[in-house]
Amino acid sequence: MPTLIGPFAQLLPLTRIAVRGPLQDHQLDVIKDGGILVAEGKVVAVGRFHELYGAYAGAGLEVEELREPTVGLPGFIDCHTHLCYAGSRARDYAARNGGQTYQEIAAAGGGIKETVRHTRAASYTELSQNLHERLNRHLRNGITTVEVKSGYGLSVEEELRLLRIIRQTGAAHAADVVATCLAAHVIPPEAASEAAWLATILNEIAPVVKAEKLARRFDIFVEEGAFTVAASRPFLEKLKHQGFQLTVHGDQFTTGGSQLAVDVGALSVDHLEASGSGEIEALALSDTVAVALPGATLGLGCGFAPARRLLDRGAALAIASDWNPGSAPMGDLLTQAAILGTFEKLSTLEVLAGLTFRAAAALGLHDRGRLTSGQQADLVGFPTEDYREILYQQGQLKPSQVWKNGSPIT
Amino acid sequence: MPTLIGPFAQLLPLTRIAVRGPLQDHQLDVIKDGGILVAEGKVVAVGRFHELYGAYAGAGLEVEELREPTVGLPGFIDCHTHLCYAGSRARDYAARNGGQTYQEIAAAGGGIKETVRHTRAASYTELSQNLHERLNRHLRNGITTVEVKSGYGLSVEEELRLLRIIRQTGAAHAADVVATCLAAHVIPPEAASEAAWLATILNEIAPVVKAEKLARRFDIFVEEGAFTVAASRPFLEKLKHQGFQLTVHGDQFTTGGSQLAVDVGALSVDHLEASGSGEIEALALSDTVAVALPGATLGLGCGFAPARRLLDRGAALAIASDWNPGSAPMGDLLTQAAILGTFEKLSTLEVLAGLTFRAAAALGLHDRGRLTSGQQADLVGFPTEDYREILYQQGQLKPSQVWKNGSPIT
Repeated sequence: MPTLIGPFAQLLPLTRIAVRGPLQDHQLDVIKDGGILVAEGKVVAVGRFHELYGAYAGAGLEVEELREPTVGLPGFIDCHTHLCYAGSRARDYAARNGGQTYQEIAAAGGGIKETVRHTRAASYTELSQNLHERLNRHLRNGITTVEVKSGYGLSVEEELRLLRIIRQTGAAHAADVVATCLAAHVIPPEAASEAAWLATILNEIAPVVKAEKLARRFDIFVEEGAFTVAASRPFLEKLKHQGFQLTVHGDQFTTGGSQLAVDVGALSVDHLEASGSGEIEALALSDTVAVALPGATLGLGCGFAPARRLLDRGAALAIASDWNPGSAPMGDLLTQAAILGTFEKLSTLEVLAGLTFRAAAALGLHDRGRLTSGQQADLVGFPTEDYREILYQQGQLKPSQVWKNGSPIT
Repeated sequence: MPTLIGPFAQLLPLTRIAVRGPLQDHQLDVIKDGGILVAEGKVVAVGRFHELYGAYAGAGLEVEELREPTVGLPGFIDCHTHLCYAGSRARDYAARNGGQTYQEIAAAGGGIKETVRHTRAASYTELSQNLHERLNRHLRNGITTVEVKSGYGLSVEEELRLLRIIRQTGAAHAADVVATCLAAHVIPPEAASEAAWLATILNEIAPVVKAEKLARRFDIFVEEGAFTVAASRPFLEKLKHQGFQLTVHGDQFTTGGSQLAVDVGALSVDHLEASGSGEIEALALSDTVAVALPGATLGLGCGFAPARRLLDRGAALAIASDWNPGSAPMGDLLTQAAILGTFEKLSTLEVLAGLTFRAAAALGLHDRGRLTSGQQADLVGFPTEDYREILYQQGQLKPSQVWKNGSPIT
């Protein structure tokens, strides 16, 4: 039974807009008094509300009428999060801003090891509830698809436990969850060496991930203090050979990760705060999506990824929250994306593309991120008559309604 | 009839902490299981909840018991806002991020003139409601005292109208409003010259402001394209001679304003993004409070005020939102202050001081900003057991309760 939702003061279907390169707001197709026809969770048609009503009216058409001015656009997609964890790192945060070094914080029991300790000690129920509540917050903010990485288990059993929690909690949640195995987050304290841990992931984690269908994606943190390019390359190539999709944490503090991501055909490389001209050029010539993580910039107080230059050279740019307890505790994707936009001088359309179909591309998803026939009817509505208010209010304008697979979220 | 509020998991009275210079978190006096005794809107005593209960129990003591873990601290003070306006500048914002220049935006009818046009056209009721709703949002976020500037009227009658709206709306609101006359925001299009407009303010606005007690403070925007140092100096000196308190918008894009503010004994100089070593040194040696406005940094995508260097040299640093429709549309002071903290490496205490007693100093107020006997019982409670969560969550942790003059805000 089809449902017609609308009229929207403005409906932004984001169709016919390139996945790559710079965009200007005049390229945006804004449908005034727009309507969207959905059936069985998919978009059937998008157009003027009254024209759709005239074309489809009859027995069986339900109308979900919007009585307040609303701007509608595809549900947001957060393509990079670390939401499955326990414990807070507020102490680290205060110490770091108070002038302590990374080494001092680690020596005092802080850093990622603290999150690993809390996460390992947490029950299934606690971790699942934490994840569920974070997904709730994201969904209320209009984020209908959320990537969630493991990475705070750092042993065979604990990484698999987290992936099972992510799968089961995600399956039960209204938002769609895309799981990624980030067992290669850092070298675990118990591991004999970098090589030993990567071999363990390949030999003991990846087969179970595949057999239980826990995740279709693997990630690795390529960085000084985490994993080297030399060790990461064969690791990623073997995973690719096994049929896994790849993504890379690259160029956060030092370069190397982005070129590796391009070389191995990763779907995305995320961070890029340290990327220079060579890295930008390589990304622009590749099919790898560049993912900016402004939440990490705001959490650490460092530079932003060179989003403007990446776009101008022709790269595909997505924007994700990196929500994690260490470097990106805010977890408000829209606020972060708006701020990235002011610092990097991104058009409204470039930001919205980075939160929707370009983020879908980073996840290898082609069924969402635009409002066109056959796509998932994932939709966010903001209480305004002008789409520019969404970024202008820098996260303070909250959605008035969110729809997942055509159904309103209450 | 005294009321005892508590127990707070942690109570931060912020007493015995200097108004000037750097602060470390170990200087923070954290009262566990704290209580605060209030009577007639003032703080009577602060200490351990059960000790206060034992000392004051008896006929007449009311207890307002907190049943969830709460961190309590003085209500925040936003010492720099432009909240009395109509209209949105979302179009400017999108154009600026999309690459248009200030001149192009102004030529298209944007910029401050657009806000002046909308504000002049707005009724008393509309402007009062806008201001009321913005004050409501601030109060829910724990901001119990709000400075509000005029400045979008830019004629004698319109500036006086705005100041009357600010006074009357402020008097009827639960938050305390401190009005400031910013008739010297920019040179009005109708004015014959800079000198002519400043003379009009002195001759026609200031006497009415004084007679009607509309504001105790005057502000001026010292900047290229606004007012010169040469013209601002005698203007401010004359206002000071008439008994007005002074504050200055200075060093946003070019320097000069901060030295002038120091020279004329202004209570504060606000912005300072362009301040260099000379300006920092002058401020550190003065009694003028340096006010950082991270909301303008995040709205425009430019640099932050040199908060760390100002503190290290010994200046008093307050943090304000600059909430205005052009350059600082976010209006979330806590988010902004937390982000300033990560970029400038400010301790938790430095940020909290900048939002409380140091902001009070910027307004020349000595009756709030600390929780000590005789101060106004303005208080904000956050639902956490660790005060460090307040900045760590970067504005996402909202107050669970706010008290103004000892009374809970519902």
